[in-house]
Amino acid sequence: MRRRMRFFSDNAAAACPEVMAAIAAANQLDTAYDGDALSGRLNTAFSDLFEAPVEALWVATGTAANSLALAALCPPYGSIVCHHDAHIQNDECGAPEFYTGGAKLLLGRGEGAKLTPETVEELIGTIRNDVHQVQPAALSITNATEYGLVYTSAEVAALGELCQRSGLAFHMDGARFANAVARLGCSPADLTWRAGIHALSFGFVKNGGMSAEMLIFFGSQHRQATSYRRKRAGHLLSKGRFMAAQVLAMLENDVWLHNARAANKSAALLARAAGKRLVLPVEANEIFLKVTPEEAAQLRAQGFDFYDWGVGEARLVTSWDSDPAHVNALAAAIEAL
Amino acid sequence: MRRRMRFFSDNAAAACPEVMAAIAAANQLDTAYDGDALSGRLNTAFSDLFEAPVEALWVATGTAANSLALAALCPPYGSIVCHHDAHIQNDECGAPEFYTGGAKLLLGRGEGAKLTPETVEELIGTIRNDVHQVQPAALSITNATEYGLVYTSAEVAALGELCQRSGLAFHMDGARFANAVARLGCSPADLTWRAGIHALSFGFVKNGGMSAEMLIFFGSQHRQATSYRRKRAGHLLSKGRFMAAQVLAMLENDVWLHNARAANKSAALLARAAGKRLVLPVEANEIFLKVTPEEAAQLRAQGFDFYDWGVGEARLVTSWDSDPAHVNALAAAIEAL
Amino acid sequence: MRRRMRFFSDNAAAACPEVMAAIAAANQLDTAYDGDALSGRLNTAFSDLFEAPVEALWVATGTAANSLALAALCPPYGSIVCHHDAHIQNDECGAPEFYTGGAKLLLGRGEGAKLTPETVEELIGTIRNDVHQVQPAALSITNATEYGLVYTSAEVAALGELCQRSGLAFHMDGARFANAVARLGCSPADLTWRAGIHALSFGFVKNGGMSAEMLIFFGSQHRQATSYRRKRAGHLLSKGRFMAAQVLAMLENDVWLHNARAANKSAALLARAAGKRLVLPVEANEIFLKVTPEEAAQLRAQGFDFYDWGVGEARLVTSWDSDPAHVNALAAAIEAL
Amino acid sequence: MRRRMRFFSDNAAAACPEVMAAIAAANQLDTAYDGDALSGRLNTAFSDLFEAPVEALWVATGTAANSLALAALCPPYGSIVCHHDAHIQNDECGAPEFYTGGAKLLLGRGEGAKLTPETVEELIGTIRNDVHQVQPAALSITNATEYGLVYTSAEVAALGELCQRSGLAFHMDGARFANAVARLGCSPADLTWRAGIHALSFGFVKNGGMSAEMLIFFGSQHRQATSYRRKRAGHLLSKGRFMAAQVLAMLENDVWLHNARAANKSAALLARAAGKRLVLPVEANEIFLKVTPEEAAQLRAQGFDFYDWGVGEARLVTSWDSDPAHVNALAAAIEAL
Repeated sequence: MRRRMRFFSDNAAAACPEVMAAIAAANQLDTAYDGDALSGRLNTAFSDLFEAPVEALWVATGTAANSLALAALCPPYGSIVCHHDAHIQNDECGAPEFYTGGAKLLLGRGEGAKLTPETVEELIGTIRNDVHQVQPAALSITNATEYGLVYTSAEVAALGELCQRSGLAFHMDGARFANAVARLGCSPADLTWRAGIHALSFGFVKNGGMSAEMLIFFGSQHRQATSYRRKRAGHLLSKGRFMAAQVLAMLENDVWLHNARAANKSAALLARAAGKRLVLPVEANEIFLKVTPEEAAQLRAQGFDFYDWGVGEARLVTSWDSDPAHVNALAAAIEAL
Repeated sequence: MRRRMRFFSDNAAAACPEVMAAIAAANQLDTAYDGDALSGRLNTAFSDLFEAPVEALWVATGTAANSLALAALCPPYGSIVCHHDAHIQNDECGAPEFYTGGAKLLLGRGEGAKLTPETVEELIGTIRNDVHQVQPAALSITNATEYGLVYTSAEVAALGELCQRSGLAFHMDGARFANAVARLGCSPADLTWRAGIHALSFGFVKNGGMSAEMLIFFGSQHRQATSYRRKRAGHLLSKGRFMAAQVLAMLENDVWLHNARAANKSAALLARAAGKRLVLPVEANEIFLKVTPEEAAQLRAQGFDFYDWGVGEARLVTSWDSDPAHVNALAAAIEAL
Repeated sequence: MRRRMRFFSDNAAAACPEVMAAIAAANQLDTAYDGDALSGRLNTAFSDLFEAPVEALWVATGTAANSLALAALCPPYGSIVCHHDAHIQNDECGAPEFYTGGAKLLLGRGEGAKLTPETVEELIGTIRNDVHQVQPAALSITNATEYGLVYTSAEVAALGELCQRSGLAFHMDGARFANAVARLGCSPADLTWRAGIHALSFGFVKNGGMSAEMLIFFGSQHRQATSYRRKRAGHLLSKGRFMAAQVLAMLENDVWLHNARAANKSAALLARAAGKRLVLPVEANEIFLKVTPEEAAQLRAQGFDFYDWGVGEARLVTSWDSDPAHVNALAAAIEAL
Repeated sequence: MRRRMRFFSDNAAAACPEVMAAIAAANQLDTAYDGDALSGRLNTAFSDLFEAPVEALWVATGTAANSLALAALCPPYGSIVCHHDAHIQNDECGAPEFYTGGAKLLLGRGEGAKLTPETVEELIGTIRNDVHQVQPAALSITNATEYGLVYTSAEVAALGELCQRSGLAFHMDGARFANAVARLGCSPADLTWRAGIHALSFGFVKNGGMSAEMLIFFGSQHRQATSYRRKRAGHLLSKGRFMAAQVLAMLENDVWLHNARAANKSAALLARAAGKRLVLPVEANEIFLKVTPEEAAQLRAQGFDFYDWGVGEARLVTSWDSDPAHVNALAAAIEAL
């Protein structure tokens, strides 16, 4: 039987060997919650990576990371500016509303799920400064975006300046932060705190992890409250050593970056094959391309598994473990359409 | 250097070999969230175990399982009757309050963290039936209790009858449910739905799992709402196959039961050694005994690691992987005090 | 000194004489909360008015009425479809999110803040039926709308059919329900439950009341939960007799309807004067018209008090107690521009 | 027919003439929400009364005042220390839990619903300082208490010192604050901020108001957040002028104090008559006395209306408008038992 070739989601990728080995090794440790030696090394490890003191907490999902970040940055009576296509708006079943205690999301438009300072400024300009309206308290962007575009450090910094000027806290949903860094070749610091980011959801699971995502605070003011919020949300795992182990394994030798580069490389190869079919530039590991239903069926008949994206479009997602043979085969199949 | 001998928490126990093997095997699967084949088998597997149709959802912590159960069973304006020493009251940082949207806990007393129908009836009798008071909506008991006692099927059924009579939903926190079943030698069905339980938090992590706990609903009415609540709480892991794999591995060949028996057996051995020092009968895998600070220090000097429990008492916890040599050594050391 | 002529808000209108007299009379009663004879008559009085058994609860604000209704009709993990310009979206500081425990609002467009079945259907069609997205649970419309338009019974019924077909509960924000009924000359029943409405916020304060608004449930299923929610929101006033008294006084002799007719009549007079300046048809007691900043200044110089509404537009609001002399003067002034 | 003589609740008392007159006068004003001249005078009026800058917000109930205060002082993951018999625990249907987003109440004992520094210290000493337990964030006391006792300024100050030492915010539920001040003859400042109180729910309704209670913050830090919270709770009444009018009328000429003195005086008279029957000293306007069911029936047969309070006890409540003839008659009837 012919094997299905997976391009529908990086959530379906395997955990990478370094992570599996680290999990096995962590099984020798025996301390509960986050009292273990591995969890104890996280602040230092991420402070090194970000060249600044950070607070680093593991959680089991990106949704939890995003929501805990937003609960720290936005009061129940505030709103969070984000893109109309943001994951926090469309794919987390109201988690930000739940964690914040009923904050609102204020939605902006922009190609490829990207926001600009102009859009954000216009959006917050629609809110009267009185008690009848929920006041904007935070901005959340996704990098790489839900449509595979990447904000450069300069673009983030421009938004960061607006945030500072407007009294907004600034959050980055980095479910594919690694892919963005890999694309830009910049330092993680330049893309985050140096550009005004206060909290980052740093994704590891799509990129080769098994079950650990990181919430990074640049500065220490939110650590304590978030520790309580994490516990009361049921995200303080009793065997937290397995969480820390995964992440530390991916930091070591820049596994996180190598994995992201591999995914991006596969995507670039598919992008070249797609050529004029591309709906958007391919800057990370997602490809949106125009295909007729018949063409999509044709690709599927060859064993390629992917999602339709509206009418006449499809989404392909590569991952750290995309099989080069599959990628090449898909590239050829697209060119042959 | 002498090795530390661990008796402070079953949260510190290793993941058992069957779980580690299952995790490795699950890494071959590639479907996201709970759309995988393993997650798809959970309802059937647990329905078999419980001899009745159940809905079975994995989550990452017992706190999440408890809170999702309670949010299903108690409205924001209701209260949950539980023991003053219940985990949901003392050790979850207000998770039930967070998940329910502000329900109250109504606290009862009883030796060894056990409630009786009389206590519960008296407690709900203190509440006037008017809108000024939060009305009791659910009862939550822990089996085995936080003090290592076990409710028999008959005891649970007596509480279940009271619940039915009083219009209360009935939840069991089974962080150590396996230990209770192992102790009683009863069927899981007798200890739960046949005794009136509506929802069970079925613990796997303390008993040899890595990161997966189960929430079991007896009946289908709460499944849908809870699926949404789980997602918005950030507990729908994107690689859910690793969660289902752990649990299925522990169901197969009754690993869960064998593990619990091993832990109980070690505890029984220590209980015999403790003799008159015992504060409470030992019915599961926790031993509470009287030791002076000097005696505690003496035990620690020999490498035994455990928690003091108030003044003049200590708690010992055994687990599926307690080293028999350590257990025997501790038993001897206690006898020698 | 010349008197300011008020056209900026019906919230600024006086309490009508019948209400003031009823409040004075209620001061002879002496029972607490809603245990008084007046509050006890509300269900009957409103059941008579609506020709069907209803549950009628007083609260102090329209925001509370709306939010309690929505909390009854929409779970925390659901969404409420409403117009982009709805009061619940723009002017209640996130009250629906607070009361529901974090539900979302799903926003539609349409002239004059009116929704059509097509718009609603399209909107709910954008939501995938999976746990990643908040599912629509209720529809809320405002009648008369925030822009002074009126939904006819047939228009409401068309939306009601869609709600039934789609499993949505149906709420009407009737802050100016009286004005809508006055305009249509229909029965309150035709405009509500016969058209599929489940809950109505029935406004009295803008229409001559002092501090009492009514929440009406068509059917009894939400009464009990809402009684608890009202209490825990701090809306069970300890001297509730003053609340019931106001409302009963306005029901007697159709004061509510006469007051609304008076306000509508004044608005119609201004609408005729505005002629081609009208931005929208005038169907209730609000007039939106085009005026240049200079013209607006000219009107204000003559003592007319009103709000600008964006650039080049103004909003005039009449009320039950609009002084005919002021109305005539304003009509003349507009014609003279 | 003989008139019922009311001693069951001060919530059933009339609104006093000054309040009724002020309401009538306020009906001449025409500004919406809290933009009116009367509301604008509140900060100054209460700053004068308290000899310090305060922020003063009206709300419709004591429950709302308490809950808004607690939401300002305690995060969702914190707890509020209060007495087991506190109104916020027993009579507000979980309002503090709703407004805070799921905080817990930590309950202490003490005669007459009074807490001492020792009790509070012991209570907070039971909480481990780790993320598994909800950490105490605030203390709330009721003055006069639910059992009619009064905390002196010195007693409050002793608790205030403990709060400061322990990092707790300090709230006073002053539903009967006026009665406490009347009893003590102290300055409002001495009983509040000078003793460490951060927020006061200052009750007017039981004491002769109609529907307005005040929330007083000593200091300005909580004003803004609370303004938003008040709005989203539906407590920003659209005709707020009627709220401010009531309160200002009661401040003028110390009506609030005269009313409270009258209530206390009637209570003192009944206390003397009750003599050895008293369960607790009578320090404000509540009398708890021992009466057999037969004696209670005897009093009721004479037209006296009051509540039984457990078995063999009754509660009498006097108010600003207790009829001296009724009070004398009840005193005589008690003596005659």
